[in-house]
Amino acid sequence: MAASTALAASAFAPVRPLRAAEAGITIGTLPPGPLDGITDVAGVAVGQVTKIEGAAGPLVPGVGPVRTGATFVLPNKNIWTQRVAAATWDLNGNGELSGAHWVEESGFLEVPVALTNTLNVARVDDGVIDWLISRWPGIGVDDDVPLPVVAECDDQGINDIQGRHVSPQDVVKALDAAATGQFPRGNVGAGTGMRAFAFKGGIGSASRRTSAAPGADTVGILVNANTGSRAELRIDGVPIGRLLEHEYLPVYPKRSAYAAHGRAADGSVIVVIATDAPLEARQLRELCKRAVLGLGRVGLTSHVSSGDLLIAFSTTRLYPREGPPNSPPAVYDEDRLDALFAATAEAAEAAVIDALLSARTLSGARGITYYGLPVERVRHYLNERPWRTNS
Amino acid sequence: MAASTALAASAFAPVRPLRAAEAGITIGTLPPGPLDGITDVAGVAVGQVTKIEGAAGPLVPGVGPVRTGATFVLPNKNIWTQRVAAATWDLNGNGELSGAHWVEESGFLEVPVALTNTLNVARVDDGVIDWLISRWPGIGVDDDVPLPVVAECDDQGINDIQGRHVSPQDVVKALDAAATGQFPRGNVGAGTGMRAFAFKGGIGSASRRTSAAPGADTVGILVNANTGSRAELRIDGVPIGRLLEHEYLPVYPKRSAYAAHGRAADGSVIVVIATDAPLEARQLRELCKRAVLGLGRVGLTSHVSSGDLLIAFSTTRLYPREGPPNSPPAVYDEDRLDALFAATAEAAEAAVIDALLSARTLSGARGITYYGLPVERVRHYLNERPWRTNS
Amino acid sequence: MAASTALAASAFAPVRPLRAAEAGITIGTLPPGPLDGITDVAGVAVGQVTKIEGAAGPLVPGVGPVRTGATFVLPNKNIWTQRVAAATWDLNGNGELSGAHWVEESGFLEVPVALTNTLNVARVDDGVIDWLISRWPGIGVDDDVPLPVVAECDDQGINDIQGRHVSPQDVVKALDAAATGQFPRGNVGAGTGMRAFAFKGGIGSASRRTSAAPGADTVGILVNANTGSRAELRIDGVPIGRLLEHEYLPVYPKRSAYAAHGRAADGSVIVVIATDAPLEARQLRELCKRAVLGLGRVGLTSHVSSGDLLIAFSTTRLYPREGPPNSPPAVYDEDRLDALFAATAEAAEAAVIDALLSARTLSGARGITYYGLPVERVRHYLNERPWRTNS
Amino acid sequence: MAASTALAASAFAPVRPLRAAEAGITIGTLPPGPLDGITDVAGVAVGQVTKIEGAAGPLVPGVGPVRTGATFVLPNKNIWTQRVAAATWDLNGNGELSGAHWVEESGFLEVPVALTNTLNVARVDDGVIDWLISRWPGIGVDDDVPLPVVAECDDQGINDIQGRHVSPQDVVKALDAAATGQFPRGNVGAGTGMRAFAFKGGIGSASRRTSAAPGADTVGILVNANTGSRAELRIDGVPIGRLLEHEYLPVYPKRSAYAAHGRAADGSVIVVIATDAPLEARQLRELCKRAVLGLGRVGLTSHVSSGDLLIAFSTTRLYPREGPPNSPPAVYDEDRLDALFAATAEAAEAAVIDALLSARTLSGARGITYYGLPVERVRHYLNERPWRTNS
Repeated sequence: MAASTALAASAFAPVRPLRAAEAGITIGTLPPGPLDGITDVAGVAVGQVTKIEGAAGPLVPGVGPVRTGATFVLPNKNIWTQRVAAATWDLNGNGELSGAHWVEESGFLEVPVALTNTLNVARVDDGVIDWLISRWPGIGVDDDVPLPVVAECDDQGINDIQGRHVSPQDVVKALDAAATGQFPRGNVGAGTGMRAFAFKGGIGSASRRTSAAPGADTVGILVNANTGSRAELRIDGVPIGRLLEHEYLPVYPKRSAYAAHGRAADGSVIVVIATDAPLEARQLRELCKRAVLGLGRVGLTSHVSSGDLLIAFSTTRLYPREGPPNSPPAVYDEDRLDALFAATAEAAEAAVIDALLSARTLSGARGITYYGLPVERVRHYLNERPWRTNS
Repeated sequence: MAASTALAASAFAPVRPLRAAEAGITIGTLPPGPLDGITDVAGVAVGQVTKIEGAAGPLVPGVGPVRTGATFVLPNKNIWTQRVAAATWDLNGNGELSGAHWVEESGFLEVPVALTNTLNVARVDDGVIDWLISRWPGIGVDDDVPLPVVAECDDQGINDIQGRHVSPQDVVKALDAAATGQFPRGNVGAGTGMRAFAFKGGIGSASRRTSAAPGADTVGILVNANTGSRAELRIDGVPIGRLLEHEYLPVYPKRSAYAAHGRAADGSVIVVIATDAPLEARQLRELCKRAVLGLGRVGLTSHVSSGDLLIAFSTTRLYPREGPPNSPPAVYDEDRLDALFAATAEAAEAAVIDALLSARTLSGARGITYYGLPVERVRHYLNERPWRTNS
Repeated sequence: MAASTALAASAFAPVRPLRAAEAGITIGTLPPGPLDGITDVAGVAVGQVTKIEGAAGPLVPGVGPVRTGATFVLPNKNIWTQRVAAATWDLNGNGELSGAHWVEESGFLEVPVALTNTLNVARVDDGVIDWLISRWPGIGVDDDVPLPVVAECDDQGINDIQGRHVSPQDVVKALDAAATGQFPRGNVGAGTGMRAFAFKGGIGSASRRTSAAPGADTVGILVNANTGSRAELRIDGVPIGRLLEHEYLPVYPKRSAYAAHGRAADGSVIVVIATDAPLEARQLRELCKRAVLGLGRVGLTSHVSSGDLLIAFSTTRLYPREGPPNSPPAVYDEDRLDALFAATAEAAEAAVIDALLSARTLSGARGITYYGLPVERVRHYLNERPWRTNS
Repeated sequence: MAASTALAASAFAPVRPLRAAEAGITIGTLPPGPLDGITDVAGVAVGQVTKIEGAAGPLVPGVGPVRTGATFVLPNKNIWTQRVAAATWDLNGNGELSGAHWVEESGFLEVPVALTNTLNVARVDDGVIDWLISRWPGIGVDDDVPLPVVAECDDQGINDIQGRHVSPQDVVKALDAAATGQFPRGNVGAGTGMRAFAFKGGIGSASRRTSAAPGADTVGILVNANTGSRAELRIDGVPIGRLLEHEYLPVYPKRSAYAAHGRAADGSVIVVIATDAPLEARQLRELCKRAVLGLGRVGLTSHVSSGDLLIAFSTTRLYPREGPPNSPPAVYDEDRLDALFAATAEAAEAAVIDALLSARTLSGARGITYYGLPVERVRHYLNERPWRTNS
C-alpha cells in the first residue's frame, strides 16, 4: 500500500515541538530543561517508528488505513548490562505493560520501554528480543533471557489495528536509531493514531528541574495521550474542555458499527518517567503516584476502560549485570524528594498538554478525523486571566 | 484545665457550614446533594468530639494547650451486624489507618471509621471497642472480635499531642450521639488542630450526584485536611496559593525547638468516601484513586511525610453478619461507573476546599496561630475569570 | 530439521498419565476427581503443541535442537464472550504472566491462559490474537481488543530458546484442538524442555474435591514445573531429594559457557488453578496463596531467579460481554471456602509431583540430559513409612 | 483477682525451652544458632508480660479468668533513632498488624514489634507510646510522632478477652525489661492463651544459619501460633495431626453459646523475622513469603478467619533518624539471598513446631482445656522413619 504522502507530511509535528512556552502556556512554577522533554535527563534516548499508509477511508481489517507506530525510551544504550532502578504503577489497569512482574520484583529495568497499539504488543515484544539478541548474542545461550516491557494504547478509531502493522524489523530499526536530544512529538510513533480529550492526541513530553540552581535534579516525562473526554480538559486550571465542549469534535461515520460500539474506543494514557536523581524503586513508585496528581490537574478521571499505566526509572541508580553497583549515594533528604515529587506532578501535567499542542489534525480509518487543539483559542482563554500579570 | 471559652466560641464553624456555593465557588459541574456533605448518602451518620482547652501559649507536654478531637463516620448505626462493602488505598503511607488488613481481605467494613490525631489512635481504638461491646455485648464472648478502623493526622503544631486528650469515654459519647443530617466542619472533631496549605485546616465535606435526575447515585466525601504547602493551593483552577503566598502565614515562636524541627509538622489528608451505589470492594478502591485525582486539582503533591490514606464504602452493598446478603444487583454498567468516578474526583476537590472555607483562625500550643482562608480575597480572584460568565 | 523420532516417541508421556495413585503415592486426604487433572473442572479444555526436533547435541542458536512447546488452558470454549472470574498472584516475580493488569483490574479473564518458554511469549501472544480474531472477527473493528495472558518458564538448558520455535500458526492449531477430558502430561507443550528438582520436569496436573459427597466443589490445577533444587524435594513429606541427592543428576557438558552461566538456568513454576465454585476475584486470589502452601510442602523455596506466578479462575462465576451475569450465588460460607483452600493446597502439591511422575528422561541442546524421577525408588521410600498402614 | 499460683507455675515453659533437638526432632538441614531463637540475631531483644489470673472456670466478661499477655521484639534498644530496614506481608488478612502503612511506605521500622490479643491492641499501642515518650521525651514536642506496630491473635477461648488485661503500664515494664539472650516460649506473653492445631499453642522461636561457616548469615523467627486444625499438622513431613486426630482434643463446655459460635475461635499466626544480613525492604518482603512456604510444610492452610501476618527486619541495614546511614553494602549476591530464603522457610517451620513443643496443657475461661503436644508420641512416630538412619 502506497503512503498517502500529502497526509503524511502534515500529520507529523516538526522535530522542534511547539512547546508550551511558545504557545504562551506555562504549566507550574518549576523550570523545564532545555528540551522540555524526557531527553533532558542525560543519557535517555528516544526512537520511534511511524506508520501512516493509505488514504483516509473505509476500514479493511488487516489491510488499512494504517495510522500507528511505536515509541521507545531507553534509559541508556546498554540497558541490558547497565540496568537502572525502576518501578511501575497503575492508575487503572485496563491495559498492558508487559514485563511489570520482573521490574516490580527486581526493582530495576533491563530492557527498553516500548509503546505501541494494543494488538501490536506481541510483534513489538518480538522485535525488542531481536534487537537485544543482535546486541547481546549470548542471550539464551550463556546469558539470561529478557522479559520485554511493552505498553499499549488502543488506536482502533483511525487505524487498522487488526493489521498489526509494526513489524519486528521496524522495531529493530527504531531501536538502532534511538538517540538522545530533541525528538518529534504528537502524531508520531505510538502516538500516531491517538485521540485525547476528543482532540488529536499522541506523544507528549516535558521536563522539570527541581530548581534553577546548578546540580538540581531533573524529571523528564513522556506520555502517550489517548484518553479523556472533552468536558474534562483543563489547561493550567482553565476549563478549556468546557469552553470548547461542542467544537472540533471527531467526525464519525453515521450508522456505523463502530459508532454503536462507542465505549471500546475509550482510551488510556501511558506515562514514562525518567530522573537523574539516584532514586530506588520504592521512591520511583512514589514518582508514579505524583504523576497521577499531575494528570488530575489536566482533568483526567480515568475511566473503567482506561489502561493508565506508569513506569519510572533512575538513570543514575545502576544495577550492573556483572560486578557491584557504582551509583551515587541513595537519596534520604526529604526536601529533595519532595521537590522531585513537585517536579513530577508538573512534568506530567505539562507532558499531556504538550501532546495536545504537538498533535495535528489527522484522518484515517472509517474516514474519521481527529482535530488538533486550536492553539490560538486556547492562548486567548489563558491570557484572559488577570492575575497572570502579577503572579 | 478550664476551657478557654472565648476561643472555643469563635473556633467552631456554625452547624450550617459556609458552603462553597455561598462563597461563590463552584467546584466541577455535577450537582451537590442538599447538604453538600457525606451525610447526603442516606444512612451515613457523623459524630464528633472537640477538645479545646487552655489558652493559647507555651506547650506543657502532657497537659496543654489542647486543640484536638475525633470524628466518626458510620455507614449505618448497626455497622457491626450490617456490614458494608469497603476498600482502602493509600497515596502516601506515612500515616495510620488501622484495621486496613481486614477491610482489604474481606472487602467489607464492620466498624465505624474514626479519625483523630496521631498519638490518640490507641485511645480512640479502645473507645470504639467499648462502644461496640456496649452495643453488642456478645463480642469476644460468643461473637467475633472487632478490629477498629482509626486514621490519624498530626496536630502537634497547636495541640499538646503527648497528652492524648481524647479518652475512650469521649469516643463512646460521640458515637452514641452520631447522627444523620448536617454536621459542623472546620475546627471540629479530628480537624480541630489541623493546618492545610499553611491556612487553618480541618474537617471538610462535599457530595456530588452523578446527574440531576432522580435515582442518580450520590458520592459523599469527608476529609481531614492537614496537608499542603501554601504555593500549591489551587481553588477551581485558580492559583490562590501563589496569589496569597506571603500572607496569612502561621506565626511560629522564634528560635523554638519546634521551628527547627519543622518538617515533622508536615501533614496529611484522610479521605472517607461514601456512596449509595452498590459497588463492591474492587470498585470502591477505584473510587479512592479518583479521589486522588481530585486532590491533584487542589494542587496537592503529597510529601514524604504525608499519610494520605483513603477509605471508601457503599451503604447499599451489604454483608450481614448472619444470613445471606440482600443487596441491589452489583454495578456492571461502565457509564454508571465512570459517572461515579467523575463525582468522586469533584467531591474530593470540593471537600478539601470546604475544609478551608469552614475552618476559622485558631491559636494554640506554643502561641502558634493558623489563619483561616480569607474568603473575600478568594472570591475576588475567582470572580475575575471572564469565561465564568458564559460557561 | 528432521524430528528425532526415536527420542520423540519416548519423550512423550502416555495420554493416560502415570497418576500418583498408580505409583502408590497419595498426596493429602481429599478425593481427586476422575481424571486427577484440571479438566475435572467441567468445561475446562487443554490444548498443547510439542516441538521436539533435532537430535540431542550442540546448540546452534536460532536453529536447534528444539525441545519446547506451548500449553493452553481454556476455562470454556467461548472465553472471549463468556468471561470468568479470575485473579493472579506471584510468589516470586522473576517471570512473565502478561495480561495480569487487566485481570487484576477487572476481576475476570477473557482469553485463554497460555504457557510457553521465555522468549516465545510474543509469538504465542500473537497466535492467541490470531485465534481470537478467527473466532470473533469484530475484534478491533466493532468490538474491544484482547490482552493475551501468556506465562513463561525458561527452557534454555536443552532447548534452542533463541529460535522461538512455537509459531502463531502452532498456537491457532493447538487452541482449535483444545479439548475437555484427559490430556498428556510431562514432556509435553510448555513442559517439553523443563527441569524440576534437577529431574526432568514439565506439565503436571491434579484435582481435589472438597469432599466425596455429590455436589462438592472441585479444584483442578495445572503446573509447568521448572523449578527446585534437588535437596529440597519432598514427596508426601518424605525427603526424597536428600535421599537421592547425588543420583540422576543432569549431565552438563564440561567447560561450557553454559555451565559457567549456571544460575540463569534456575527455574520457575507456573500454576493455573480452576474451580467450579462460583468464587469472585478476591477469593480466587486466596486460592493462589493456598497453592503456594502446597508448593511449600513439596519443598520449594522459590529462588531469586524464579518466576513463580499463579492464576486462578472460576468456571461458574461469569461476566458475559453482553447482558447481565447469570452466575450461581456468590460463596459466603466460610466452611466451604476453607475446604476449597485445603483442596487447593493439596492439588498444588499433587500437581507438582504429577509433573515429576509423568516426565520422562530427555536429552537435548548441548547434549544435556534430564533424568526422569526413578519412580520405583520413590515408591520404596514411601512404602517404608510404618504409619501408612494405619492412617 | 488473685493469681492461680499452681496453675501459673506449670503453665510456664522453662526459660531454657524444650528445643526441637532435645525432642529428637530435626527440622530441615541448616544449622540453628546457639539459642535456636530469634535472639540469635545479634542485638535482638525480647520482652514479655504474662497474665494468668483466676482459676479455670466460667467466663465473667470483663473480669476473668485471665490467660493472656504481650510479647515484644526489639531489633535494637534504640529503635526510635536506630531504625532498621523492614517489610510486612500478609498470607490472610483477617487480623491486625498496625503501623504497616508506614513500614511499607518507608521501608524501615522505628518502633518495637508488639504481639498481643485482638482486643488488647489499643492498650498495648498506648503503652508502646508511653515507653517511647519515656525514652525520647521530645516525641510530639520537637520530634516526630510514632505509629506503633502491634499484631494480634484471638485468645477468647480460654481468656476473658473483653477485659483487655494487658495495661499500658505492663507494656512499659516489659519493654524496659526486654533483653537479648534466651527467653521463655510456649504459654508466655502473647502466647499465653493460644491454641494451635487443637493443641496448646503460643510463642515459638527458631533460628537458622545459612551455613556452618563463620560469617554466615542468621535468620531468627518468633511466631505466635494460634492456628491450624488438627488433621493438618505435619512435623518434619510426618502427618502427626492425622495420627493423633482424635486424641488430646480441647474439651469445650457442652451446649454453650461459645461452642455454637465455633468458627470465631479459629485462629491466626503472627510471624516476626529477623536477620543480620543487610537486606532492604524489597528483599525482606521476600523473606516473609519464604516463611509462608515453611508454614505450608507444617500443614497450614490458612483459613478465611485467619490473620496470618508477617513482618521482617534487618538488624544491620540502618536508617538513622539523623545523619547518613552507615550500613554494610546491600546484598546483590543471588546465592546468598537464596540461602537466606531456605533458612527462612526452615526457621518458620521450626518455630511453629517449637511453639507446640514449648507449650504446656492449660485450662482457662469456660473451663476449656488445651492440651500440650504429647512429645513422646511424636518422638515415637518420627523415629519410625527408617531413612532417618542414613540421611
